[in-house]
Amino acid sequence: MLKAGILTIGDELLMGQVIDTNSVWLSDQLNKLGIKTVFKMTVGDTPMEIEWALKNTENLNFLLITGGLGPTKDDITKAVLFKYFKSTPVSDPFALQMIENFVKSRNGEMNKLNINQALVADNCKVLYNSCGTAPGMFFEEKERVVISMPGVPFEMKEMFSNTVIPELKLRHHLSPVLYKTILTTGIAESMLAGLLSDFENQLPSSVNLAYLPSPGIVKLRINLLVETTLENKELFNRLFEQLKLLVRDYSFGYDKDTLEEVLALCLKTSGKTISLAESCTGGHIAASLTKIPGSSEWFKGAVVAYSNHLKTKLLDVSDSDIHSFGAVSKQVVESMAKNCRKKLSSDFAIAVSGIAGPSGGSTQKPVGLVWIAVSDSNSVVSKQFLFGENRERNIIKASIAALFFLLESVKKS
Amino acid sequence: MLKAGILTIGDELLMGQVIDTNSVWLSDQLNKLGIKTVFKMTVGDTPMEIEWALKNTENLNFLLITGGLGPTKDDITKAVLFKYFKSTPVSDPFALQMIENFVKSRNGEMNKLNINQALVADNCKVLYNSCGTAPGMFFEEKERVVISMPGVPFEMKEMFSNTVIPELKLRHHLSPVLYKTILTTGIAESMLAGLLSDFENQLPSSVNLAYLPSPGIVKLRINLLVETTLENKELFNRLFEQLKLLVRDYSFGYDKDTLEEVLALCLKTSGKTISLAESCTGGHIAASLTKIPGSSEWFKGAVVAYSNHLKTKLLDVSDSDIHSFGAVSKQVVESMAKNCRKKLSSDFAIAVSGIAGPSGGSTQKPVGLVWIAVSDSNSVVSKQFLFGENRERNIIKASIAALFFLLESVKKS
Repeated sequence: MLKAGILTIGDELLMGQVIDTNSVWLSDQLNKLGIKTVFKMTVGDTPMEIEWALKNTENLNFLLITGGLGPTKDDITKAVLFKYFKSTPVSDPFALQMIENFVKSRNGEMNKLNINQALVADNCKVLYNSCGTAPGMFFEEKERVVISMPGVPFEMKEMFSNTVIPELKLRHHLSPVLYKTILTTGIAESMLAGLLSDFENQLPSSVNLAYLPSPGIVKLRINLLVETTLENKELFNRLFEQLKLLVRDYSFGYDKDTLEEVLALCLKTSGKTISLAESCTGGHIAASLTKIPGSSEWFKGAVVAYSNHLKTKLLDVSDSDIHSFGAVSKQVVESMAKNCRKKLSSDFAIAVSGIAGPSGGSTQKPVGLVWIAVSDSNSVVSKQFLFGENRERNIIKASIAALFFLLESVKKS
Repeated sequence: MLKAGILTIGDELLMGQVIDTNSVWLSDQLNKLGIKTVFKMTVGDTPMEIEWALKNTENLNFLLITGGLGPTKDDITKAVLFKYFKSTPVSDPFALQMIENFVKSRNGEMNKLNINQALVADNCKVLYNSCGTAPGMFFEEKERVVISMPGVPFEMKEMFSNTVIPELKLRHHLSPVLYKTILTTGIAESMLAGLLSDFENQLPSSVNLAYLPSPGIVKLRINLLVETTLENKELFNRLFEQLKLLVRDYSFGYDKDTLEEVLALCLKTSGKTISLAESCTGGHIAASLTKIPGSSEWFKGAVVAYSNHLKTKLLDVSDSDIHSFGAVSKQVVESMAKNCRKKLSSDFAIAVSGIAGPSGGSTQKPVGLVWIAVSDSNSVVSKQFLFGENRERNIIKASIAALFFLLESVKKS
């Protein structure tokens, strides 16, 4: 398999304020071309670390470099590349013309800095920049191709897509990697690993399974590590179907799906509407659903009844239920769901009541205890959950559990 | 100056799906400790690249490693570290106990994978994980310290802040960089730059001012680039006071403050309560406030009245107002705020109604138009805002504007 490294250059990327999005985008592109990114590295605008990276990645097929080509003083990538590749800097007339046109189109005037930007190595293929001033450079060694591109994301993306990819395709037969991701919830990573241990043990070495956990959700990514021949593809598909079956009770979608979007689609398809009665999630479920454009089609609204008083006043929960069973109880959460559905005139309602923490817990009802109910025109069902001690994650986990519970209910209806 | 490298491990970070936020956070922390991050590197869950990184960074003072410590098979960092440092793996009884407690608190059962997580090197200092199962390890060589931490961001952050920093301070005199941050809202970055241009032009070269924008908020960070002598400190403080005065109409806090926390403190101090009537923000304001522990003290609840029907039914907005002026209007939003305050029995209420987009706009009322009202026992006041075309950012910007509007009102009362 072809291997690439990505080197992003810029002091600002090491100061802890700016996120390097170039390397994320590039590794996604490379992945789709069947080129494996084996590392990403970020260094400052200092010759030493750039040289070091060039010298220590000779075993790769490709080294993609972004940044450090601007006209200001702190950008020294070009000088390091000239030295490393023993190049003579020459002014490229076509690049110079493009820079002049670019500067003039913005009513600017050419200065020494702009003129210097047209300097490129005599032993590289010049990558012209159609969106900015700095040209890129394409160097070929025996084993490795080194590509230097600007750091401005839209300039880099345009150059990579329209100039670099065609060059790579001239040199290599590129076959995209086959992979699929299954999204699961309601099961911890270690439990999932237990459930899948037999499956994993019998996986051939040509197929890899990875667990990608985030609060409340574990993504399972299965990918083929070898060329996508017909035979390999069939093997991959067979294994993927096996995996799907093994985790069917916990899966809600694939690849770039989100739980909210899957639920939204399901509601739109079935023509059903929902409303929410949130206590411990405090509006988090409503916010996650209304992020989706067009949510007003199926989302009626929510009552965030944080105090017991509002549970009574806005959701007609009986004082005696709250008194007898507590606000975090099967009785209260079911009553919240039933009454919410009626008051907000929706087909389904979710209610959530729990102890998010850090305070408010007791031995009988510890922090992390959450009751969730789903109500439709026929019935109301509820479940008890026990999450952890962290308030923020309890809110996220309770929200995901509630949405998954609702999704399953809507599917069954 | 002390130099550090950051190594983040995980196949998922090289697939172009997941953004590595750990290294951004860590380099920010290091920066504040006066340690320079000279590079960041990401490699996959493969021994070769991890070994390579360990071998090629011996010139650094610190190598911080995150990720690759989970219980599943794809995590192999520990094996590489054992080999590199010629360690014998031993089960740490205290780590094992912590893992057991953690698993049991979630009603799980210990399995082989969990038990293996307690394996650590015999020649390291164990870094206990108070938020998860995987312990970290702290290795010391002649020149370099190598620190392995979990990849889950909150586990890593907790471990770094509470365990790693004290260890580093034992070994090095760390002289933090002097800096302060002023948080502003309600003014765009370019306007702020205009307002501060005279101030910036007269700044000495020993002081730097940076603009750190995020949707709805611009952070201004002023920092001293030279040693913190008494004289330099006095100069820095004088400039900071000047800056504060210049942006006083837009600032709501400093450094790590959040708008929600500043508002929470203000409400607690004044003993006032609030409630919300959200339309286009869809629960986002409620969710951002209830993230704060103890918010039930001052937050009564919210009505997310997404449909006009619910504005009428739950918030007693008159049908004729909606019909005459539209749901996004001064009349309707003021009525929402007034009635919300009464119905939810709070001292203050905010109401927000707008067009988040992408659809629903018109020439007269374009996408991005938002009305916000604040009501107290004496009066109701409202303001019109025009944000942009992006739904997600409109929701965030409207939420921030509403909280700032409320904060100013509570302060005046």
